Amino acid sequence: MYNSPVMSSFSFKQIATNGAARAGVFTTPHGEIQTPIFAPVGTQATVKTLTPAHLTDLGASLVLSNTYHLYLRPGADLVAEMGGLHQFMQWPNPMLTDSGGFQVFSLADMRKIDEDGVTFKSHIDGSMHRFTPEISIGIQEKLGADIIMAFDECAPPHDRAYNERAMARTHAWAERCLKAKTRSDQALFGIVQGGVFPDLRARSAEFIASLDLPGHAIGGLSVGESKEEMNAMLEVVTPLLPADKPRYLMGVGSPEDLINGIARGVDIFDCVLPTRLARHSSAMTRTGRLNLMNAIFARDPQPIDTDCTCYTCRTFTRAYLRHLIVAKETLAGTLISIHNIHTLLQLVRDARQAILDGRFETFAGEFLASYKPRGRHAAPSHT
Amino acid sequence: MYNSPVMSSFSFKQIATNGAARAGVFTTPHGEIQTPIFAPVGTQATVKTLTPAHLTDLGASLVLSNTYHLYLRPGADLVAEMGGLHQFMQWPNPMLTDSGGFQVFSLADMRKIDEDGVTFKSHIDGSMHRFTPEISIGIQEKLGADIIMAFDECAPPHDRAYNERAMARTHAWAERCLKAKTRSDQALFGIVQGGVFPDLRARSAEFIASLDLPGHAIGGLSVGESKEEMNAMLEVVTPLLPADKPRYLMGVGSPEDLINGIARGVDIFDCVLPTRLARHSSAMTRTGRLNLMNAIFARDPQPIDTDCTCYTCRTFTRAYLRHLIVAKETLAGTLISIHNIHTLLQLVRDARQAILDGRFETFAGEFLASYKPRGRHAAPSHT
Repeated sequence: MYNSPVMSSFSFKQIATNGAARAGVFTTPHGEIQTPIFAPVGTQATVKTLTPAHLTDLGASLVLSNTYHLYLRPGADLVAEMGGLHQFMQWPNPMLTDSGGFQVFSLADMRKIDEDGVTFKSHIDGSMHRFTPEISIGIQEKLGADIIMAFDECAPPHDRAYNERAMARTHAWAERCLKAKTRSDQALFGIVQGGVFPDLRARSAEFIASLDLPGHAIGGLSVGESKEEMNAMLEVVTPLLPADKPRYLMGVGSPEDLINGIARGVDIFDCVLPTRLARHSSAMTRTGRLNLMNAIFARDPQPIDTDCTCYTCRTFTRAYLRHLIVAKETLAGTLISIHNIHTLLQLVRDARQAILDGRFETFAGEFLASYKPRGRHAAPSHT
Repeated sequence: MYNSPVMSSFSFKQIATNGAARAGVFTTPHGEIQTPIFAPVGTQATVKTLTPAHLTDLGASLVLSNTYHLYLRPGADLVAEMGGLHQFMQWPNPMLTDSGGFQVFSLADMRKIDEDGVTFKSHIDGSMHRFTPEISIGIQEKLGADIIMAFDECAPPHDRAYNERAMARTHAWAERCLKAKTRSDQALFGIVQGGVFPDLRARSAEFIASLDLPGHAIGGLSVGESKEEMNAMLEVVTPLLPADKPRYLMGVGSPEDLINGIARGVDIFDCVLPTRLARHSSAMTRTGRLNLMNAIFARDPQPIDTDCTCYTCRTFTRAYLRHLIVAKETLAGTLISIHNIHTLLQLVRDARQAILDGRFETFAGEFLASYKPRGRHAAPSHT
């Protein structure tokens, strides 16, 4: 009765495992994604401050863009008229759009949720709009990403009653998204919700898995719960999601979260963290973050990270980057974004190689022992 | 009594002429400059929104940076400690620094001029500073550009009495700069002043030429006078500047000004115009400017200029660029800067080829007949 969720243009092959961690290849109409993978976020059809050529040089294989933002500006019809999002932003490789659900709940100025959908006020001009599962899928089909997401509701992680209601809606909406979907060159991923409650997470994972979609996402994490709670939820959810489909942990992208997620069987991650931190002078390294605004870097002739092979580290000193920051030059954001995205892409490449070599546990243990997180990022990181 | 103005690391060779227009090669310690050339401006040790890799891809051979800005932030001693400006900003090709004179007169909050120099208040933090010819040369020697400029005073172009005084000071200061100079790997250019007054311009050109410096600049133009007045001044000055030295028209960079300058024997130009216009959504083309913010471009699938071969025009539509502008994405500034700088570099490359082919007059005539300037840029363009 549904259109077939198994599409010829998509396939996921698990190549090697180390405990729950796995290396795979996810084939999409715009090419292969070697998993585990981190996807930089291009909220408004651009990964902020970078050209597509920068991203290609960095070896990025998957880029995410936001349905909520593109629906409001420039509009899905315009993007469709310009040949779709790949063509519009000139990204030749795989692309994913979210459903707009998270942004409606976190960014829109006013919202009214009912069983059918959400009415909300644009954060740009105050105009009123409505998203339903069918509308979200319609927009995502116009945008034309390879991977599209079911419309879901993300609840505050510790509110059980709210999470029960939101999960029920998320499940009903996932079924409606699947029914609404018409394009065979897009893979629809369902989203597991359930806050920090293991029984809700398990029920949600079982329901979403039962839809036999080409991929599964885990939503509602990295939104205020602790790292321990996030890891505990992953340990409940990933074993219930079939091994022959990719697993995507939404909005998560700190180095330790990537390693902890990979260790628990996650294949795909996305986050604005590397580009947002870059625009706030913060460089991500394999051992922690550096605030390059700090005066101790004013005369520092070293690169951000002497072991890093990115363009920024091959070329520029911390002293120069700090000068750009102090002088308010946007090139600082560009150069630190290049470095931060490289750091995350290299981390997942190294993790993948470790899985292929059968030494992921050692790799992860050594990484986590030497990594000093400087606190969680304060704001939700999905936008 | 002066240190020799003829340095082994610098030479200028005139290769071909067409009337007053000429094609040449200016050799510097960091490589050859094929003239006529346009130099993008990197005010604060960065050409705004671009990486050095972008500039290399564009074929830029000479970049200008500003002594006033770098003196205030991050400071000349810091730049020297980091190996000089080439090393600091990782620009491997020829570089020019101005003297700080123009910025002291146009940007500093308060200034007091005397015969010895200028006392001024920083536009950044209100602190008091003093520039003299000796201090300007000292800073420029620490920065280490290939071409350095004499400290001068730029007067309002139509005030004759002021221009007489400013010119006399500019001449005395040029002699002091030459005396103060100690490095043999930097070429000091003197600056011709004199406002819109042909007799003052002629006196100034004769005096500056008499110093036998390795190059000559024409200052105080594009600061409020008409295009006709600028061209008339060039016709007075360039014949008086020796043909075996490069001639540099400071702060000038609109397409028609480049062609008019080349026609009158100018070899080097610089201007913030292409990058400043880019940050204000304005694209430069061979026939005029396009304001890409305009709603008529919202669904325009063409590149900025179908004949242009730059990365931006090979890759992106006007519709996408307009979306980036409306969404306030800094990538808009990057992509339009790439296009605008390419437009000016390609224009001078084509002009050079026309001179080599003996058809510059036809080339210039056809260009000027099809070019529609959309008014002069309002603000002084040297910063």
